[in-house]
Amino acid sequence: MSKLLDGVVSELSKLPGIGRRTALRLAMHLLRMPKEEVADMTAAIDKFRHDIKYCKRCNNLSDEEICPICSNPARDHSVICVVEQVGDVISIENTGQYNGLYHVLGGVISPMQGVGPSDLKIDLLLDRIAQEAVREVILAVSTTVEGETTQFYITRRLEQCAGLKITSIARGIGFGDELEYADELTIAHALHNRIDVK
Amino acid sequence: MSKLLDGVVSELSKLPGIGRRTALRLAMHLLRMPKEEVADMTAAIDKFRHDIKYCKRCNNLSDEEICPICSNPARDHSVICVVEQVGDVISIENTGQYNGLYHVLGGVISPMQGVGPSDLKIDLLLDRIAQEAVREVILAVSTTVEGETTQFYITRRLEQCAGLKITSIARGIGFGDELEYADELTIAHALHNRIDVK
Repeated sequence: MSKLLDGVVSELSKLPGIGRRTALRLAMHLLRMPKEEVADMTAAIDKFRHDIKYCKRCNNLSDEEICPICSNPARDHSVICVVEQVGDVISIENTGQYNGLYHVLGGVISPMQGVGPSDLKIDLLLDRIAQEAVREVILAVSTTVEGETTQFYITRRLEQCAGLKITSIARGIGFGDELEYADELTIAHALHNRIDVK
Repeated sequence: MSKLLDGVVSELSKLPGIGRRTALRLAMHLLRMPKEEVADMTAAIDKFRHDIKYCKRCNNLSDEEICPICSNPARDHSVICVVEQVGDVISIENTGQYNGLYHVLGGVISPMQGVGPSDLKIDLLLDRIAQEAVREVILAVSTTVEGETTQFYITRRLEQCAGLKITSIARGIGFGDELEYADELTIAHALHNRIDVK
């Protein structure tokens, strides 16, 4: 095989979910793209990897020291939604239903993978609460074992903050999900936290 | 969303099979990779797109004017296997069962997509046969309608070459395939071209 082709296939197959066969297909696609478009793509990747910052307040990805969400005066600065990762901020922003701020933990507590509380931005969250006029913290972590552990730990830490409201996003049956395929824990949770309809 | 992140997501989602969600996942992976590794990847892509050549004899991807297969004296230069695309050369090379040369057409005849015989490297194939001592041409194109049309057209052109043997790779039931799920045309073909076992 051509060394140049082999080089690009080896590099692309380092990405998650991309094997050598997919990498070869991508390489063939790169050949059909105009050279300038390929150059634009690699430049965007390099610039992203080199220049991206983490917001000093919420740990979200940002082009500046402080991200556009934290520096937006039109948002409600008294509510912080705690999420695991940057992708979760994008998911919640896409709903258009939330106008508060965020706090990106950067993962969940996972002793199996050697991630302890000090590896997450939990102290930074407490600093923010001490310095800013925060009224409510919404916990929006995964319902995995690690997520629940993280939620439990953070709740314990936040309980020290007088007058702070601590909430969690609702757990229940998702829209489009069938009850038949939902697990018992989810159904039990959904029953227990039932809401008034009328 | 951060402009840098949005830029890299937009660029990556131009690749086939990569939507915005997958692009975001890839971007997050790029952040976890060391900066040097990301730079190596983009450099490999740029170098590939910029420096790659097509072999002047067989139209395979090559780092030089003539590819390593065509310039290898240990290979049988009297047999040419005609394939649609570069990936097919790699697939056949991976079997380790073929020692002849190749000829990459660069596609198949497809009036629907505006690809005519003149868009493929068919004249180059005839030039090679006129200049080199070619004994046999093996046609290894897809069994799609376009592939069969291409095979029919090339066969007609090659029939003009006196003393040239023209063969096609066998069509039949693949290893691991069940007869139950094979289509009638394949089964009919496989029956008609049955081989002696004893």
